[in-house]
Amino acid sequence: MNVDIWSDIACPWCFIGKRRFENALADFPHKDQITVTWHSYQLDPTLPEHYDGSELEYLSQRKGTPADRVAQMFDHVAQAAAGEGLEYDFGSVVVANSYAGHELLHLAKAKDAEAGTSLADAVKEALLSAHFEHGEDIGARDVLVRIGAEAGLDSAEINAALDAGTYRDSVAADIRRAQALGIQGVPFFVLDNKYGVSGAQPSELFAQALDTAWREANPLVMVSQPAGAEGTAEGLDGDVCGPDGCA
Amino acid sequence: MNVDIWSDIACPWCFIGKRRFENALADFPHKDQITVTWHSYQLDPTLPEHYDGSELEYLSQRKGTPADRVAQMFDHVAQAAAGEGLEYDFGSVVVANSYAGHELLHLAKAKDAEAGTSLADAVKEALLSAHFEHGEDIGARDVLVRIGAEAGLDSAEINAALDAGTYRDSVAADIRRAQALGIQGVPFFVLDNKYGVSGAQPSELFAQALDTAWREANPLVMVSQPAGAEGTAEGLDGDVCGPDGCA
Repeated sequence: MNVDIWSDIACPWCFIGKRRFENALADFPHKDQITVTWHSYQLDPTLPEHYDGSELEYLSQRKGTPADRVAQMFDHVAQAAAGEGLEYDFGSVVVANSYAGHELLHLAKAKDAEAGTSLADAVKEALLSAHFEHGEDIGARDVLVRIGAEAGLDSAEINAALDAGTYRDSVAADIRRAQALGIQGVPFFVLDNKYGVSGAQPSELFAQALDTAWREANPLVMVSQPAGAEGTAEGLDGDVCGPDGCA
Repeated sequence: MNVDIWSDIACPWCFIGKRRFENALADFPHKDQITVTWHSYQLDPTLPEHYDGSELEYLSQRKGTPADRVAQMFDHVAQAAAGEGLEYDFGSVVVANSYAGHELLHLAKAKDAEAGTSLADAVKEALLSAHFEHGEDIGARDVLVRIGAEAGLDSAEINAALDAGTYRDSVAADIRRAQALGIQGVPFFVLDNKYGVSGAQPSELFAQALDTAWREANPLVMVSQPAGAEGTAEGLDGDVCGPDGCA
């Protein structure tokens, strides 16, 4: 069964949602049969390649949100992150455009498709951690090359792909698919092409959605006697107790 | 999901449109759940069984289009075909009535309906290629028998069906359905009995139409907490980042 996740890098709820989903998946009985695919999304395509100020300054100056409200939001999100074992450090976050990071993710996806590896998940995890926990510039080439290499990609290949823009169209195609699906915010989870979960919902809700989608894709096959067989009413059920008794 | 395609054989844009649609379908995530059905249409029912001149002569003498304009049209269409990897050779095209070719297509459709094969697509492809790329007479019995046999039909069955006119009514019924749908030119694509695409549109447009029709037929079912549940605004979204921030 497929789970498709649209998410950005500069998106605090995306990392938290990743953890909450992963926790649900870890307890899911059929987790070995779930294929998770990360898709690109950009919350703010207008973000500069680099910006010489803090995240708080960017949000308050460029977006016009009052500084104290931004600080409040940081606190709220950092607490939620801590609840999932993530150590957000908004003071050190480096404002950067995530497009090149998404291209790196798609290079990893292409390798995974060839080799059956799971480099994309490692890259996604490392990009989020670098951005929110370690004050790294996920728009900088050297950071992207290091993250990719640590995940198992070849440094020369990363540089070549980013130089040539090999995966620019793949990123754009993901964003177009998100629009076609009506996605207006991230993280957004699509289970088995059918069920949508918007936002960093509690793990319990992800667990419930996984159960629902799985059960629908894999309904129980009923084994029964032929209709009219001895000892059966209509053949479908054996003797059974229900809410109305054991008739 | 069904895609119904009305198209003729002696129809240069029909072959080009077939390729452009196929390219979109190849990239469509749910392609395994798309059933393509070829329907018959005749652009020119008055075409003779055989004609001892070139396509250019036929169009200029019988239809009154100036020869240089016909030649210009051939150039334009051949270039578009080349863009899709098709090698049109208008100089060698054999003018022929396509009705018997459509009967062959319907024999293949009948076999597909019985056996779950996809002979009709192979027959349609071979008829178009024979006509536009290989200067073959798609009105000639031996050509039709060879094309059908190569696609996997039985030669004796082809001859019997064409002798008896077994599928003449099926071809006529397709053409009547086209008229009922208001189709005035081909190729014409109907997605999920709802969306129409007229002509050899770019692959991107077919991709978009497939997305739209699919999404409408299979809307995401949102999994969410009950309205008013703790930690949710209206219960529908979890914590989410959108274009206006992560509030």
